[in-house]
Amino acid sequence: MAEAMSREALAARDASDPLAHLRAHFALPEGVIYLDGNSLGPLMVGVRERVRQVVEREWGEGLIRSWNNADWIGLAQRVGGKIAPLIGAAADEVIVADSTSINLFKLLVAALRLRPGRRVILSERGNFPTDLYVAEGMARLRDSECQLRSVERTAIEAALDQSVAVLMLTEVDYRTGERHDVARLTQLAHDAGALVLWDLSHSVGALPIDLTRAHADLAVGCGYKYLNGGPGAPAFLFVARRWHAEIEPVITGWMGHVRPFAFDTSFAPAPGLARLLSGTPPVIALSALDAALDGFEGVTMRAVREKSVALSELFIALVEAQCSEFGFTLASPRVSEHRGSQVSFRHVNGYPIMQALVERGVIGDFRAPDIMRFGFAPLYLRFVDVWDSASALRDVVASGVWREARFARVATVT
Amino acid sequence: MAEAMSREALAARDASDPLAHLRAHFALPEGVIYLDGNSLGPLMVGVRERVRQVVEREWGEGLIRSWNNADWIGLAQRVGGKIAPLIGAAADEVIVADSTSINLFKLLVAALRLRPGRRVILSERGNFPTDLYVAEGMARLRDSECQLRSVERTAIEAALDQSVAVLMLTEVDYRTGERHDVARLTQLAHDAGALVLWDLSHSVGALPIDLTRAHADLAVGCGYKYLNGGPGAPAFLFVARRWHAEIEPVITGWMGHVRPFAFDTSFAPAPGLARLLSGTPPVIALSALDAALDGFEGVTMRAVREKSVALSELFIALVEAQCSEFGFTLASPRVSEHRGSQVSFRHVNGYPIMQALVERGVIGDFRAPDIMRFGFAPLYLRFVDVWDSASALRDVVASGVWREARFARVATVT
Repeated sequence: MAEAMSREALAARDASDPLAHLRAHFALPEGVIYLDGNSLGPLMVGVRERVRQVVEREWGEGLIRSWNNADWIGLAQRVGGKIAPLIGAAADEVIVADSTSINLFKLLVAALRLRPGRRVILSERGNFPTDLYVAEGMARLRDSECQLRSVERTAIEAALDQSVAVLMLTEVDYRTGERHDVARLTQLAHDAGALVLWDLSHSVGALPIDLTRAHADLAVGCGYKYLNGGPGAPAFLFVARRWHAEIEPVITGWMGHVRPFAFDTSFAPAPGLARLLSGTPPVIALSALDAALDGFEGVTMRAVREKSVALSELFIALVEAQCSEFGFTLASPRVSEHRGSQVSFRHVNGYPIMQALVERGVIGDFRAPDIMRFGFAPLYLRFVDVWDSASALRDVVASGVWREARFARVATVT
Repeated sequence: MAEAMSREALAARDASDPLAHLRAHFALPEGVIYLDGNSLGPLMVGVRERVRQVVEREWGEGLIRSWNNADWIGLAQRVGGKIAPLIGAAADEVIVADSTSINLFKLLVAALRLRPGRRVILSERGNFPTDLYVAEGMARLRDSECQLRSVERTAIEAALDQSVAVLMLTEVDYRTGERHDVARLTQLAHDAGALVLWDLSHSVGALPIDLTRAHADLAVGCGYKYLNGGPGAPAFLFVARRWHAEIEPVITGWMGHVRPFAFDTSFAPAPGLARLLSGTPPVIALSALDAALDGFEGVTMRAVREKSVALSELFIALVEAQCSEFGFTLASPRVSEHRGSQVSFRHVNGYPIMQALVERGVIGDFRAPDIMRFGFAPLYLRFVDVWDSASALRDVVASGVWREARFARVATVT
């Protein structure tokens, strides 16, 4: 094991990595190892070029004409169609719009209408906060018509009773990287007569997802994490085709109208998922995401997953071998099958240690109270990067540099 | 009059125009006169540079660190603060987020909660369709708790009874450019015990607005028309400070939380307008809008309005003088005071005529059934542009070129 983990052996592994060539698509800064692609994916060369083209040519020169000439009007569907194969969906089952929070709201309202007589949104106490907040807001809006029930992870199954309209979960936990069994929980929800709404924000682009096979009903996901769409990129939503005829839009803006440019005075929903669009699409951001998704062309999610597991296992092994005396505890599941594409360690001084590590050029992040997160995005990370990261972590803790006062300063976003 | 309208006289007028220097801030394409800034404002040089910087430096090099280092987290408020002086608001009364449609939804729900016992959203039948659609969707969502009442423009005053919770109007009509009296209608709404929600999409950046003086309650507006923020730029919302303590968020996402990065499991609203934020802000688009707003620095809306009126009056006079025999009818109010910054003419063959005009490089647009729209954005248009536009229009109709079959083809977006 020790020999297989030498930097030389890992460089050789990079040389034979079938995904190694993909790194050239990324405009990574010098001197940085980026282990935070689970929070904000990096810039791709093609995205940089595409944004220039959209801004300078399509908008600058084409002006209003680009709605037709550059097909801005079809972007939301076109980009959705590119996300579809990453989540095991058909092209017309995915559309890109707004933010994950807004899409959650739209789909929760729709889900409750599809299950009249049931009032409960069931979720997990440790779900990503915005998911819980949106459901809370929904419950206040609809007053007694709906309520959020958040339970511990282990209590989900028992809480799936006849009052549950929709089970809302995030596949991969944002702190620990722990992964739910999408197919099994979907089946359990269906057995209880509930729909299921998956938040794929921390999984899409990093691991194989098959919503069709899982028979999932609804899903949302983020465009700026493993999909590399850029800061605040628009989010996507998925609705299984069997619900398309029934699903009702709630924020009925003009882009969801069957004929948006007829400027009718009354709303008539567009066929399919387009009815869930609301306002004018964010063209520049959608185009950036569109270009970023081209990075997945010809890449199988199986190969991505294999490398993700290999990178993650290597990191766990290296940290445990080199930093064992410094008080790190693995916060992620040890079994790869139960983990997404991030590895989290707990450390009582996790915050300043992470700050010192970032200063060394190894960028992970921190979640209170004690979790250090390291994301392993297989499209641009090398095995030697993992070695260098673990080595930098050892240096930071062994030298005690993290005790310097400047690393204790709390930043807004960590 | 004829002499004052000669091209030479107009060139002289441009030479003494106090706003003439602002045109250099715009990256307008060669050979185009752009009269569609009321639909999509053009690219500014500063916006082009700013987008490059945000994409290539802040995102590309700064990566996740830019949330702090480039203050991405404060963008929504900062950009709102730049819009505030354009609408007569204080910096903390405006925030930028989502789309106009989403913001309308948020504020309509909030307005109804501020007026318990009242169920009616009163609007105008000719309001911009998305405004009506959103209210319709709201009414369906809340079932019997709320309803949309759309009346003719002339019937608004009479319809303001005790059942009205909120009067929702667009200041400038998107087809005719007709302008409401914001202060008067706000007063009438208040007299009836209702709140008022103004859609400023077709006025902000083109004419003086004073929401404080009008004592307005709520407003929304578009970032990509006269504000030049780019296609699908995020929209803004205004809430008068007197409502800040009471206003309730409805789509309660993590960005509206008092401590978004504490990742609390329960929602607690941020103080002030930040509570109305939902998902992660669209950083690139927000930055583009931020840079575009710098174009208004040192410019008084009074000077903008004066030039807007002068350009519009000149266009009306030229078209009526040169094209009188070709069947154009002024669709906009003749009195400048009642008009926004666009001039609309009706013509039975408006669609193909506008297509032929666009091919000639004069870009206006068309709204069914017969309205040709010409927007006069004073920051980049010259008096000679108006002359050349009217002259091109005359050529198009006099030559009959618009009868060619290719101009009859209906584009998705016109």
